[in-house]
Amino acid sequence: MTGQPTFDKPFQDRLQELFLWRRDVRHFKTDPLPKGTLNQLLETATLAPSVGNSQPWRFVKVLDPVRRKAIRDNFEACNKDAMKDYEGERAQSYASLKLSGLDRAPAHIAVFCATETKVGQGLGQKTMPETLKYSVVSSIQTLWLSARAQGIGLGWVSIIQPDEVKKILDIPHKDWDLVAYLCIGYPEEEHKVPELVRKGWQDRLPLSETVIER
Amino acid sequence: MTGQPTFDKPFQDRLQELFLWRRDVRHFKTDPLPKGTLNQLLETATLAPSVGNSQPWRFVKVLDPVRRKAIRDNFEACNKDAMKDYEGERAQSYASLKLSGLDRAPAHIAVFCATETKVGQGLGQKTMPETLKYSVVSSIQTLWLSARAQGIGLGWVSIIQPDEVKKILDIPHKDWDLVAYLCIGYPEEEHKVPELVRKGWQDRLPLSETVIER
Repeated sequence: MTGQPTFDKPFQDRLQELFLWRRDVRHFKTDPLPKGTLNQLLETATLAPSVGNSQPWRFVKVLDPVRRKAIRDNFEACNKDAMKDYEGERAQSYASLKLSGLDRAPAHIAVFCATETKVGQGLGQKTMPETLKYSVVSSIQTLWLSARAQGIGLGWVSIIQPDEVKKILDIPHKDWDLVAYLCIGYPEEEHKVPELVRKGWQDRLPLSETVIER
Repeated sequence: MTGQPTFDKPFQDRLQELFLWRRDVRHFKTDPLPKGTLNQLLETATLAPSVGNSQPWRFVKVLDPVRRKAIRDNFEACNKDAMKDYEGERAQSYASLKLSGLDRAPAHIAVFCATETKVGQGLGQKTMPETLKYSVVSSIQTLWLSARAQGIGLGWVSIIQPDEVKKILDIPHKDWDLVAYLCIGYPEEEHKVPELVRKGWQDRLPLSETVIER
């Protein structure tokens, strides 16, 4: 085929830098994203792979301040509840972590999976139906990297109740399941080392602990 | 912080090209990957985000030809079974698709999730434990993009039975769940348009069908 790109060594090196400097951001500036940027990021997210080309990602731009407040309240309640699982120094450490950017991030996106979509005609899902949700996750990681390359940070909030979020957002589709709630905006700081490593919560594992042969 | 990279417009444009030209590859050359490349790709995969920095990805390099044959037999049986779900032209179309590169890809990686890992101390998983598996998916998408930037193709095989694959690979860890089985190698051809679009199985959706506001 003609017109196909070659990705040279300098590009490969910068891509590696991008992976190294992608962070889960919880500290945002309140500056809004430039007009059109969010749609461009979502368009890029849809370039992700999906099982049978089912494209099951459904993005909800959460604009209403009342709904945003309700989501944040749900996070605060869940976070308080989760804290009870830790004791002593761990509990203190947990309490000191900032685990969401819901307070300041200018853009909020709830990401759902259309679990009964007919798009793609079920191809590839029969023995592993969970691949539909996995496709949505691939779209999020794609969006994340594209954002980071533009200096835009993303934080994935999972300390929320999926069914409550669905109610708060008044989603009429019975088959939509929440996959992620994303905060997007400009980060206050950029880091090469994950916040949970910097704060002593959990260090990185060596590759040898995650690879075996058969 | 000093030393932080800036990703300029030319890089952003090439990254977009990378997303556009990443394909699910089923047609591989049999040439082996250069020595060290697979480990480098796995190392890059571990730069993905993970809930609470739990790093639950577990990669199994499948080298044994007997095990590879058993995996391929499982795929063939599952694929035959899945074909029964389609009728008429759709069935003919399904039969004409090549849905895995298990026959020729030089590298096979089974990717599991350690669902009961203590790494990360459960942070972020309480209300959405599925985020552990989602972290593994993020690592696969990271590996996929890094491979493509080096001209290496990846195909994700989901038409297999996870429990059978686990048995075939003799995985002793009760809590490891299969997330994906990957074929990796040099592609016979490179394409901008997904194979399922080119073959008329499923076209791309416009963005407007996947975004709503609240």
